[in-house]
Amino acid sequence: MADAALFEFLHMEMVAELWAHHSDPGPGGQKTSLSVLEGMGFRVGQALGERLPQETLAFREELDVLKFLCKDLWVAVFQKQMDSLRTNHQGTYVLQDNSFPLLIRMASGPQYLEEAPKFLAFTCGLLRGTLSTLGIKSLVTASVASLPTCKFQVVIQKT
Amino acid sequence: MADAALFEFLHMEMVAELWAHHSDPGPGGQKTSLSVLEGMGFRVGQALGERLPQETLAFREELDVLKFLCKDLWVAVFQKQMDSLRTNHQGTYVLQDNSFPLLIRMASGPQYLEEAPKFLAFTCGLLRGTLSTLGIKSLVTASVASLPTCKFQVVIQKT
Repeated sequence: MADAALFEFLHMEMVAELWAHHSDPGPGGQKTSLSVLEGMGFRVGQALGERLPQETLAFREELDVLKFLCKDLWVAVFQKQMDSLRTNHQGTYVLQDNSFPLLIRMASGPQYLEEAPKFLAFTCGLLRGTLSTLGIKSLVTASVASLPTCKFQVVIQKT
Repeated sequence: MADAALFEFLHMEMVAELWAHHSDPGPGGQKTSLSVLEGMGFRVGQALGERLPQETLAFREELDVLKFLCKDLWVAVFQKQMDSLRTNHQGTYVLQDNSFPLLIRMASGPQYLEEAPKFLAFTCGLLRGTLSTLGIKSLVTASVASLPTCKFQVVIQKT
């Protein structure tokens, strides 16, 4: 049945609910809602990370961890793999999804681009939270050049 | 991996978020959050219902529809079937789950019973929304006598 869609529908409701009740129409209110969504994603990512098999937690190469996100995490959450992973070998990674499921239902005209950030904040948090459980501190941002393609940029925070 | 847990974690975050930002501590604020959660569940249930295969939509016996919720819907959302279904044959159905997944993580002392409603509201809406897509108007309430057992009462609204 529809279990794969459950997360997607729930995510959509969450975004709608936060925007209906939380936001001032101004940029300040939008920023709050984005950071609430990011925070929820972070905690869900942490919790998912804690359920990983022990052998997964043992890999210590940064690149292996990123590959794990692109494959296992993405399949678990979105039933597909990330399309590409690039790195500058200095702690910055760009993960590209050519048809990001949480953007697919949006109309694809350029006028909808400005709506995209609210559909990306939760997932940025999800990546950051999973990385955190795996012992890696990071900053994660997302950008969309043309819907529904989406790039997540992960910048590792060296301690 | 952890995909089965994704919904559970997300639901937990949603409840926490609504209680952190929406509620006055008084019963009025709690009521608002409960009805927001119920509404989100309703819309997710509707959306899930719309993805059902056409043959499912064709069954017209009320009892068949309820059996479908107990089996297919429950498996899709909770990876388990409902434990029992009873009816008075006059439009009232009691669906019992002996270990309702959204309550399992709660400590089981009787002092936690009063926290239970916030973990049930979304699912009441989910049942009502799926029924609505299947053409049945209903009222759905939930009650807990001892954690994590939970009963959902569905009262069909005749038109």
